[in-house]
Amino acid sequence: MTDRVFNFNAGPGTLPEVALAQAAKDIVNYQNKGLGIMEMSHRSKEFMAIADQTEALLRELMAIPDSYRVLFLQGGASSQFFMVPMNLLAGDAKATYLDTGTWSTKAIKEARQFGTIDVAYSGKAENYRRIPQPDAYQIDDDSSYLYLVSNNTIFGTQFAAFPNSSKMLIADMSSDILSRPIEVGSFGLIFAGAQKNLGPAGVTIVVIREDLLDRAPDSVPTMLRYKTHAEKGSMFNTPPCFAIYVVGEVLKWLKAQGGVPAMAERNEEKARLLYQLIDSSDYYRGHAEPDSRSRMNVAFNLPTADLESKFVAEATAQGMIGLKGHRSVGGCRASIYNAFPLDGVRRLVAFMEEFAGANPA
Amino acid sequence: MTDRVFNFNAGPGTLPEVALAQAAKDIVNYQNKGLGIMEMSHRSKEFMAIADQTEALLRELMAIPDSYRVLFLQGGASSQFFMVPMNLLAGDAKATYLDTGTWSTKAIKEARQFGTIDVAYSGKAENYRRIPQPDAYQIDDDSSYLYLVSNNTIFGTQFAAFPNSSKMLIADMSSDILSRPIEVGSFGLIFAGAQKNLGPAGVTIVVIREDLLDRAPDSVPTMLRYKTHAEKGSMFNTPPCFAIYVVGEVLKWLKAQGGVPAMAERNEEKARLLYQLIDSSDYYRGHAEPDSRSRMNVAFNLPTADLESKFVAEATAQGMIGLKGHRSVGGCRASIYNAFPLDGVRRLVAFMEEFAGANPA
Repeated sequence: MTDRVFNFNAGPGTLPEVALAQAAKDIVNYQNKGLGIMEMSHRSKEFMAIADQTEALLRELMAIPDSYRVLFLQGGASSQFFMVPMNLLAGDAKATYLDTGTWSTKAIKEARQFGTIDVAYSGKAENYRRIPQPDAYQIDDDSSYLYLVSNNTIFGTQFAAFPNSSKMLIADMSSDILSRPIEVGSFGLIFAGAQKNLGPAGVTIVVIREDLLDRAPDSVPTMLRYKTHAEKGSMFNTPPCFAIYVVGEVLKWLKAQGGVPAMAERNEEKARLLYQLIDSSDYYRGHAEPDSRSRMNVAFNLPTADLESKFVAEATAQGMIGLKGHRSVGGCRASIYNAFPLDGVRRLVAFMEEFAGANPA
Repeated sequence: MTDRVFNFNAGPGTLPEVALAQAAKDIVNYQNKGLGIMEMSHRSKEFMAIADQTEALLRELMAIPDSYRVLFLQGGASSQFFMVPMNLLAGDAKATYLDTGTWSTKAIKEARQFGTIDVAYSGKAENYRRIPQPDAYQIDDDSSYLYLVSNNTIFGTQFAAFPNSSKMLIADMSSDILSRPIEVGSFGLIFAGAQKNLGPAGVTIVVIREDLLDRAPDSVPTMLRYKTHAEKGSMFNTPPCFAIYVVGEVLKWLKAQGGVPAMAERNEEKARLLYQLIDSSDYYRGHAEPDSRSRMNVAFNLPTADLESKFVAEATAQGMIGLKGHRSVGGCRASIYNAFPLDGVRRLVAFMEEFAGANPA
């Protein structure tokens, strides 16, 4: 597997090579059973074992308490934007949302159909370059939960610490799940689309506290109730089997790397190299405030838009792809998820230094 | 790829070997781009080309008129059970459903949340062994659509012809899409989970007449509106990229086989071999009435449950897997979807003859 590019895309993102190589074998003939992984009945003992092992690995790596259920759903994180309030806001209850970027804005829009949504903080006026400190917002006593997006891919911001609130937390961790140790017990529900740190697009992980399963009103369709999937081990209907299998392979790799603490250390180092260059340079400007910086997505600008275009084009030609920033911020973005190698970050840092030298503002 | 088993599972089912072999390559390194198909941004020109080509092939193979949109969604056919009425039954409108088995029963249950559902026919009393003739039910004038399941995997029944009604048809074709030519123009909406005739579990195809996109009430969440996905070419959020890619590979195979007419001929021949044996035997009894028989799923019984268990065990030992019937019918079931080879059917027929001779009732 030579000639791999360094894939800085924000997602779907780079995956561990060992997982890809295993998938390439299993897709044709799984464990010499004479059929491929995509062709196996989801009720076969082989696939049930894969699903069980994947869940067990996630529980182990995230230290998920027994009082939580793990669900493998479809529809992307975007479907959780409405499923969370649809299931958890009975009647016209209230919930508190922190608006730290595009994904929270979308979640707020969907939630308004199901209850009173209090946006306790919005970073919009500052183009979402900041994560609020706990004293920057208030949570009403009658709010059912506090919703946040732990990492904001587009703006390159991340909660360094989660609010220490008595309120139940709900978190969209699509872009930083398993990137650092977290205390699952502080959360009522955590969800994450797979395509950044977990595997391929097409499966969404939901970790939900068991007592929340009974909150959904009777009018919620069967497929949209968390309880439906919890009761059937995510096999009420045919699950996205292959995506679940790949998540399992990614988790095996992650465990072999030393688990979440080792990942966190490596992610810290990767981010440090990039931010250090940005801070020591007048040429590159980071989008996020220093105390709000993401270790997963580093968003930065060059002196001019023309130089940004040239930067992206030259990087691409050198095998570093996906560096163009989101249109909401412009500029460049390096997404350095769990499976993104340290070598690739070193390569980018060297390129950034060369480019700045060769292309004065 | 020797030692392939014959996979009679009802779904996920067998896939074309050529599609598996191609996927095994592309999953590691797609077209020498230096990254695998699961790692590519869904907005990359490479993936956009895959999605476009997959849609174009489906349009060509099914002869889908320009006035229809093709969507690649998540959530399985089970999510269409509520999405169809949620989007199409504004207010308290009425719809007519034909209950021909488990999947229509489930669809009826979900639809009742969204309007008045008239079950114009139910085969329940006969354990769903029959597909109704058009004179067996009435459709109220004020009904918005007539909903049916074109093929019933569990009971092994299939609509030989679709109702010639002035009413708009909505069909769940999860288990027989692309198995025979159909007239898309007779339908308002067709949907199909991929894991039988199209590809892996994790993507659902929806073919919808364009004028129906505007029917959804404002209260429908963004992700559950067909219009959302139609307007964004199924890329409102990250689609299940790999599943879509595999569907594309399956469609290329299908086209190379001669397209849908050639498939229909082959499917007809495969089913004929099995039903011919059943009809000429006192040992095997088919579940479905002869005029209601499925060409995709052949459900049959042996003289006793003990013999059925022995039959399944011996077949499995000989490399014919997935022949156990669904618990609702008991007995055996041979699912012989598009990609299931004629040789496998011949092999099963020979085994059935041997088994009946060696194991008298």
